[in-house]
This record gives sequence, structure tokens and C-alpha cells, in this order.
Amino acid sequence: MTTATRATRHRLSADGVPVGQAWTGRHLLDVDQLTPPEIAACLELAVEMRERRERRERLQTLAGETIGLAFYEASTRTRVSFELAAGALGATVVDLRPDASSATKGESLLDTLRTLERTGVTTVVLRHRAAGAPYLAARGTGLRIVNGGDGAHAHPTQALLDALTLRDALGELPGRKIAIVGDIGHSRVARSNIHLLGALGMRVRLAGPAAWVRDFERWPGVEVHRTLDEALRDADAVMALRVQLERGAGGGIPTLGEYRRRWGLNEERMRLARLDAPLLHPGPTNEGVELTAALAGAPRSLIGRQVTNGVAVRMAVLSLLSGAT
Amino acid sequence: MTTATRATRHRLSADGVPVGQAWTGRHLLDVDQLTPPEIAACLELAVEMRERRERRERLQTLAGETIGLAFYEASTRTRVSFELAAGALGATVVDLRPDASSATKGESLLDTLRTLERTGVTTVVLRHRAAGAPYLAARGTGLRIVNGGDGAHAHPTQALLDALTLRDALGELPGRKIAIVGDIGHSRVARSNIHLLGALGMRVRLAGPAAWVRDFERWPGVEVHRTLDEALRDADAVMALRVQLERGAGGGIPTLGEYRRRWGLNEERMRLARLDAPLLHPGPTNEGVELTAALAGAPRSLIGRQVTNGVAVRMAVLSLLSGAT
Amino acid sequence: MTTATRATRHRLSADGVPVGQAWTGRHLLDVDQLTPPEIAACLELAVEMRERRERRERLQTLAGETIGLAFYEASTRTRVSFELAAGALGATVVDLRPDASSATKGESLLDTLRTLERTGVTTVVLRHRAAGAPYLAARGTGLRIVNGGDGAHAHPTQALLDALTLRDALGELPGRKIAIVGDIGHSRVARSNIHLLGALGMRVRLAGPAAWVRDFERWPGVEVHRTLDEALRDADAVMALRVQLERGAGGGIPTLGEYRRRWGLNEERMRLARLDAPLLHPGPTNEGVELTAALAGAPRSLIGRQVTNGVAVRMAVLSLLSGAT
Repeated sequence: MTTATRATRHRLSADGVPVGQAWTGRHLLDVDQLTPPEIAACLELAVEMRERRERRERLQTLAGETIGLAFYEASTRTRVSFELAAGALGATVVDLRPDASSATKGESLLDTLRTLERTGVTTVVLRHRAAGAPYLAARGTGLRIVNGGDGAHAHPTQALLDALTLRDALGELPGRKIAIVGDIGHSRVARSNIHLLGALGMRVRLAGPAAWVRDFERWPGVEVHRTLDEALRDADAVMALRVQLERGAGGGIPTLGEYRRRWGLNEERMRLARLDAPLLHPGPTNEGVELTAALAGAPRSLIGRQVTNGVAVRMAVLSLLSGAT
Repeated sequence: MTTATRATRHRLSADGVPVGQAWTGRHLLDVDQLTPPEIAACLELAVEMRERRERRERLQTLAGETIGLAFYEASTRTRVSFELAAGALGATVVDLRPDASSATKGESLLDTLRTLERTGVTTVVLRHRAAGAPYLAARGTGLRIVNGGDGAHAHPTQALLDALTLRDALGELPGRKIAIVGDIGHSRVARSNIHLLGALGMRVRLAGPAAWVRDFERWPGVEVHRTLDEALRDADAVMALRVQLERGAGGGIPTLGEYRRRWGLNEERMRLARLDAPLLHPGPTNEGVELTAALAGAPRSLIGRQVTNGVAVRMAVLSLLSGAT
Repeated sequence: MTTATRATRHRLSADGVPVGQAWTGRHLLDVDQLTPPEIAACLELAVEMRERRERRERLQTLAGETIGLAFYEASTRTRVSFELAAGALGATVVDLRPDASSATKGESLLDTLRTLERTGVTTVVLRHRAAGAPYLAARGTGLRIVNGGDGAHAHPTQALLDALTLRDALGELPGRKIAIVGDIGHSRVARSNIHLLGALGMRVRLAGPAAWVRDFERWPGVEVHRTLDEALRDADAVMALRVQLERGAGGGIPTLGEYRRRWGLNEERMRLARLDAPLLHPGPTNEGVELTAALAGAPRSLIGRQVTNGVAVRMAVLSLLSGAT
């Protein structure tokens, strides 16, 4: 990560209201491109966006912009979240819906995106099975690209909304300990969070079946724990990851039952963490697998707040990118 | 059905225009929850909405609201009708499109709806294969729920638009006789209409193959007829139901040909009913099965008007619910 | 084609700005219905629309109109282009998305469109596998119909955007020679272009495997060439067509390799044409088949400009139709 000597620029939105600061990059490909002041600007602007949305203000920050959604993997929450965020800023939104599109004619991703660009679309939110696809899109088109999740690589807006949610709950983050539990190795959510929460000064602990945490043992500033209890002890916050049932079991976990016994979170185990330590989960949850239904519904569960913050963070991201050059 | 002692409240829309009255319930799950004054308020407001839409007025009644469409069963007319109704009131509409969504990840209905709620969606129109799903959604989330059709159970906005269409054609409804013909037992349209038209004072006759009307023989205020002619004689209005070919035949009817011979409507048979008795059908029709193409296109056929009234009724429903607390 | 004695009428848009002239027809089914002044009015208005869109003006020309998209064949560029064009004119857009619709209930095309009409939709953009479907729709409903591509028959907005792109590049078109290369026989793009570019005074040359050009040998004003070189020599412009891989090979071409050798365009072969002769392709391209990647990306390739012009032409078409009676 580069250090924070680059200046961010103030700017006014189309309706004359200052909307915070612009980022220096054209794209949001992963959180590791953001300087600490850029991260701070995003979280601050997201808080403002959240308040203005709650007051049902109609913003025109992105009036005249057209934002394309290109979700090559199924998604409810991320697609809807970006669609609402873009609309709340006054942008026009067009949904490529790749399933029903020229993808069936074998058109390449870049050709499709270049076509969108030539229709007047300025920014594309791209979700793709292939890690790196957003980087390809950023290099190969003139579009602004927002990575909406690429393979097992990165999911930067998820990490930003998690950071906002943690700041809401914990206040200052430096020195706080978070335990991330589950299939770290296949999780773009975990990977982006390890970067971002580390950059924000949190101490990141990982825990999960050996095959799922192996790559992270020498990651700087990260602790890999051999048991769930060890990872949870005195943690200030806990993030459970989704066991991706649709990818099939295997990969080091014999059965879902054994996963639940060794790595499943419940209210009793959460007592090892700090009092009222918040629980996050990127959703959708598999209740009864990676966490109990009781825990998902407990007061310390911030799963719903993560979704709300997701819209606000995406409003902030789209605003900050639109001011970049 | 509870009686009508509950007061309805007047209110102003966002643009300062009175938009009628509010319902006392948060949800529209079925018509049996509505008091007679609430039904009357809906039909009256629908007439007003129809006129304002014909004048291409831009209403802002639901400005700032976000309405989610969650159609877990294929639909053209109901989905488009709700989408246009919500848009015509100034709401933001977001379509969940469950096929392309996290449904493929096995997310539960309630989890999906709670996620929508946390994105800022205030009202969800839900269509679901499972009877009762909207009740589950109403209990399990903080959303306003509009039942867009649940299994064979209920389709309240269809019944309301049918009532409006009948009132357009017949004037006052009390004492008027309507024959509903076809697969009553599997029809949410029939079930909601039996409730609503009965509540409005109509005399409801049912006719169809024995297996399809069996459950209704002891339904209060309903007459089950053994032959089509008997049901049609002196009827003031006739409603044909769709033979649901996609569910396969069987269930008491040997062949489509036999169905057509015994229960199919045509202009000749309609002469048994009152002169110019209107014909309704919820669509899409199977011409040549439950009714002839000639009858579907005859002056007495109000199938097109039902669709037009559908948008107006849904505008009224969404308005009335948004005023509820 | 009828001659140009019909008057076109000037009109003002909803925001008081003259938006050009109206066409006399209600529908755009194919280009052969347009008189030369109507074609000229469309291209002129498209230039104006393109400039106003680049200036991010918000037009309200179609405020209060509802435009339905009914794409029964997969499409990215045409659907998105019409969606953005309609939205840029202030229209409400509703997407039928036939895959997820009552099409699965076996509803007929006409019934579906009549339903849309009764919801208040005024104009439908229809793409359909069956040649002639838009004509059926125009006769059988009260909707304005825009043909978004029907089978191998016609694709009038594609031809109009191609004509605009050629005029941008070449200036005046009469007497200019264009070589259209590939599967002419199965191409609605080619068929509409042969009509339109001929009407604009261009000399149209066709080239491709014998089985794919056979029907055109006696077409008035068209030259069929036996070799690619012959067609390209001194051509002022070249249009490559998509080899429709999804329809399978056969039909006169033994293999894709042989197609590429005999009919594939590359920079070397393009030297036979006039200096800087523009290259068009309706997209999506099969690079390495009908043209090389280098040629698709060369300065003379106007493939991107065609897409940009597509939105402008569709804005013009929707405007001109909305003024018709």
C-alpha cells in the first residue's frame, strides 16, 4: 500500500452540496489501492450518506452518469445494494443481466464492457467468477470499474462496509482484535478484510480448518489460530464466513457436522470474546453450520447493519470515484 | 371479516394532494383482512388513480419509498403492473429477480427479505409458490408485505381489480349474481374473489368439474352448480378461470376436449346469462379451452379492462398501505 | 418504397424544445417504410440527440410515455441501447424479460403485448426469432411497434445507425460503394442495410459463400461478387457480418478455417479498398473468424462509434414515432 502523501480533492456535487473528497484512483479494484486518508474519507462520507438517506434526501451527485451492473455471478444483496446506491445518487442504472445477454453468443467480457462504454455508461460494477477480471476490465476499457467480487480474490466494498460496521460498534479500531472464522482461503471477503482491517490498525486473527487457512500463515500482521477458542479469546469482534455449500464439501472438512462442532459459532463460545463483542457475517448465512440461528439473531449480531451500511458505503464509493480523474 | 368500526384516516401525499384514506393494516395478505369501508376506499382511490394516470399526472405519493418486487413464480402481468404502479407513484422500484439471485445459494425466503429490508426497502410485493409465504414474511420481517399471489391460496389485488371491473360494468354490486367457472380448487384468484365479491354483497355461483369445486360446497353464501348452464342462467357476470395446462390435466378432468365441451364458455352459452353480462378472466387465457377466441374478443369481454384496472388498484393499494402505521 | 411527397410535421417536445419532425407511420417495422425525407429527418435528429446526450442534457420528450422492451432473443447491445435511449428522453421503461414471464405459461405473443398495452405501455420494442412478428404485433395491437430485430428479416435501427456512422465517416453517401461481407442470407442486418443504403444512393456490393448470397443475385441495384478481393477493390466502406457460430456451421461453408481464408477481413486485404475506408460490424464480433483482432482495433474500425450512434438513432426513432398519429 502506498503511503498517504497524495492529496484528496474537495468537490461539490451536482446539487452544490459538498460530498466529501475524491479518490485519486479511477477504479476500486481492491482495498490495497487505498491510502489511509482515502479509507477515512470513504467511511466518513458513508456516514453522511447513511444519514442523508435516512432523511430521504434526494441526491443528484451522479445525475447524468450511467452506471452499469455486470454481475456474472448470482447476487442479491450486492447487486441490489449497488442499484439502490447508484439510484439514490441520481444516476441512471442499467443492468446487463449477463445470463440473458450476448454472453450466450460467446462475446468476450472485454467486448461486452467496451460496448457498454460506447453506449455512454461511465462506471461498471463487475462481479465475475474469475479472479482478476476487474483488473482486465480496468486496463482494457475506458470505464471506471468497481470490483463487486472477483473469484476468491477481492470484495473491496464488502470490506469497507465491514470496517464501517466495526467502527460503529467499537469506535476506534487500532489495536482491536478481530477473529475471522471459516473458509479464509476461498473467501474474497476475508482477503479484502485482512488487508483493510490491518491497514486500519486492527489485529487480525484467522481460524478454520487447516486447509482453509494454510496460505495465511506467513501473512504479515496476521495470526493463524489452531482452535476456535484460541481465536475467540478476548477478541473485540468476530466475523463468521459462509461455508460455501454450493462448492461442495471436501477441502479439508470431512462433514458439515464436524465443521459445526469444531468451527461453528454459538452464543456459548462467543463468551470467550469480549463482552458484547459484535458478530459480523457477509451473508447469506447457513444457520446451523457456521453459526447458530440464535447467534445470528442475537443483539450482538450486526448482520442487518452490515447490509444497511453496504448501501451507504457504495454511495460513498461511487461518489468518490466520480470525482477522480 | 371484522366489521367496519375502525376509522380510516385521511392523509396528504408528498405533493400535498389528498390521496384518499389509509388502511389500518400494514400488509395486504388477503382480502378477508379488509373492512367494507377499506374495500370501498380502495376502489374509490383506484378510480381516482386511473383518471390521474390517464391524464399522465406525475404523482409523488411514494417519493422516497423503495418497493421491492420478489416474484418467485414467473409473472408478466402482475409484476409489470406493480412495477408501473409503484413507479407512477414516484417510488423507487428494485426487482429481486429471484432466479438470478442468492436463491441459488439456498438462502431462505426470510433471510432474503430481511436483507432487502436492511437495504432500505420498505414494501415488498411477494409472489410465491407456497401458500402462506406472505404471512411468514409479514411476521418475520419489518417490511410491509403485499401478497402478489401465494400458491393456491390468495391473490388479493386480483380480486380488488376484478371488483373494480365489475363495478365499472354493473354499477352497484349487492344482489348481483356472478358465475365463476373452472378450476376453483386450485385457483387463488377464485378464492380471493369468493371472499371479496361475497363481502361486497354479490351472490357467487361456482361451476366446474366435481373435483375442482368439492371444497366449496359448504362455503357460506356460495352456490355450487352441477352444470355450466345452471350456473350461467340469469347471471349478471361471468368469470372464467385459467385451466392451468402447465400443471398437467388429471384431477378430475379426463381431457381438454371434454373440459371444453362441458365447461368451456362461448358466445352461445353466454346467452343464458343476462344481456351483455360482462365476462372476466384473470389471464393469460387458453383460447379454445376455457373460452373461445370469439368470446375473449367480444364486446362483453373485459379482459383488457381488468389489466388497466390492475395498475390503478395496485396504485391505490400501495398508497393506502403507505399511510398505515 | 413510396416517394417523399408526404409531409413530415414539426412538433415541440414536452419541454418546449423542437425535436425535429414526426414520421407519418406509427411503427418502425423496416426501413423500406421510410421516405427519403423521413430517413434524413431521423439522421439529422440523431446527430442532435447525440450532441445533447454528450452535454448530459435531460430531455423530457417522452415524459409520461411508457416504453416496453420485449426481447424474445438474447441481446445486450440492442436492449441496453433502447433502454438508455428511452430513459434519456424521460420515458418510463418496463422490461418484459420474456424468459421469466408468462411465456412459460404458453401465452401467445399477441396476448402478452395486448396485456402490456392495457397496462398503459404505448410503445414496444420487439425482438423475436420469427420474421414478421413485429408486423403481427402492429396489426394485432394498438401499440406503436419498433422492430428490434425479427428473425433473418429486418433490423431497421441497426441500418439507421450504420447509415449515420457511414455519413459521419464519408460525408455524402450517394455514389459511394460499400462491400457487405459474410452471411448475407441469414442476416437481418444485411437485409435492412441493403434497403437503406440503397435508398441513400450507395452502391451495395455483397460477397460471401455462394449459399449465403444466392438470394441476392437479382436484387435491384446490388452487385454480388464471387471473391472478397473483387468486392473490396476501391470500396469506400466495408461492413463485416457476424458468422453466427451459435447456428452451427454448414450451409455452404465447410469450416471456420476455410471461411477465414476466403472471406475473413484483415488489414492487408483492406488495402484493396479506398485509403482509410471505414470498417463496420454490427457486433458482437468473432475475432479471428470474420475479421482479425488487429482490424477490429484499427483506426478505421468504427465498431465503437456504431454503438454510440445506436443510442442516438434510437432516441431519434422513439421521438419521431411519438409524434406520429
